[in-house]
Amino acid sequence: MTFAATVLTLYPEMFPGPLGISLAGRALAEGRWSLDTVQIRDFAIDRHRSVDDTPAGGGAGMVLKPDVLAAAVDSVSGDVPVLAMTPRGKPLTQARVRELAAGPGVAVLCGRFEGFDERIFEGRAIEPVSIGDYVLSGGEIGAFVLLDACIRLLPGVMGAASSGEDESFETGLLEYPQYTRPVTWEGRTIPEVLRSGDHAKIDAWRKARAEEDTRLRRPDLWERYGGDPVLSPSGARQKIEE
Amino acid sequence: MTFAATVLTLYPEMFPGPLGISLAGRALAEGRWSLDTVQIRDFAIDRHRSVDDTPAGGGAGMVLKPDVLAAAVDSVSGDVPVLAMTPRGKPLTQARVRELAAGPGVAVLCGRFEGFDERIFEGRAIEPVSIGDYVLSGGEIGAFVLLDACIRLLPGVMGAASSGEDESFETGLLEYPQYTRPVTWEGRTIPEVLRSGDHAKIDAWRKARAEEDTRLRRPDLWERYGGDPVLSPSGARQKIEE
Repeated sequence: MTFAATVLTLYPEMFPGPLGISLAGRALAEGRWSLDTVQIRDFAIDRHRSVDDTPAGGGAGMVLKPDVLAAAVDSVSGDVPVLAMTPRGKPLTQARVRELAAGPGVAVLCGRFEGFDERIFEGRAIEPVSIGDYVLSGGEIGAFVLLDACIRLLPGVMGAASSGEDESFETGLLEYPQYTRPVTWEGRTIPEVLRSGDHAKIDAWRKARAEEDTRLRRPDLWERYGGDPVLSPSGARQKIEE
Repeated sequence: MTFAATVLTLYPEMFPGPLGISLAGRALAEGRWSLDTVQIRDFAIDRHRSVDDTPAGGGAGMVLKPDVLAAAVDSVSGDVPVLAMTPRGKPLTQARVRELAAGPGVAVLCGRFEGFDERIFEGRAIEPVSIGDYVLSGGEIGAFVLLDACIRLLPGVMGAASSGEDESFETGLLEYPQYTRPVTWEGRTIPEVLRSGDHAKIDAWRKARAEEDTRLRRPDLWERYGGDPVLSPSGARQKIEE
């Protein structure tokens, strides 16, 4: 089955862009996913083809008009979820990415300027999604993020050897650190346990390092994971065997 | 002054890509920022030009070699911070984006496969950065995110009218909802206060809506903002005047 991606944008020429290269590009060529773009401006209704207007109540920038957005969204065929990229949205997670990748596809609405007229979220079933706590010049780069995250999980894209289940966020933890040859580089040696060939010990070390790094780097994730409270550096901590 | 961006990647052909279009593209043409790409493979040292090797301790995928990465990083001239895009990194924030945009530029190291040999972070001053809690096929799309977020804040890029200071995350809150014409769309009318012309009232309404939406949608941000604890829907809440 082909994962059907539709991107609604004022800049269809940005696509497939980076998604036409490397992993996502090969998957596109192989028909594992498809890409349609919808030019939002094609749904403008006045003779100037305007898609935006000044913000009610004043302020800088322009706001995308609800009537034009609705017409563009209504043009999307197929029963796929419609997501709008906006910093006001729900933070994207790997769990949501997995759900989307298991479905028939996704339509992504990309804003520009000061964003969407809020009424579009009342008038249509659109899920506002944020890729992070920063502001971009438009939703297109967010669409790349969302689609790339989904595409790599589609059957056959990464190959059977790499299901992605070992990665950051899949277990609620950051991924453990990785090492490769040379064994010693600039005086730094790969942890001995990883060269031991003892798979039980390696698994235990990796789990302990994933937990340790999550606890120290991402106390927010660690708390959701249900780990112990973060101890101060002087507090008792399990020593990780290297 | 020109903001100097250098991207270290196995796919230099992805750049400028979306950053060559629209706001970032115009800013590039105007010389407000510059873009160099470094092909990591040019720093391979064996005759197969290998950049990666199997993970120590086993597992799927390939890990980028520390010696090759270090040589590529060492080739970057100019005193700019070097950031590596990785889900194990510190979450990118608008505050960090503002700091970077105020500096001379940035070098962005993009991984692929299973990521970087961990020793590169010990051997070089590289800041690991994550754009969100999901996994991408490589760091290139993260580099688009980081650079686009910086570029729009460079002097002259958004124009004097829009400093971006009113936006999501700048005050620790989500941005208030926006509306534009038509006044009534599918039976939904723009909140009356926004049509009142009373700027003090409009500012108060926007602040209250920004707080309300942050509290309900992003309790994590609300807590950091120092707001009151999130109340249950049945709890007493300040009614927002519309």
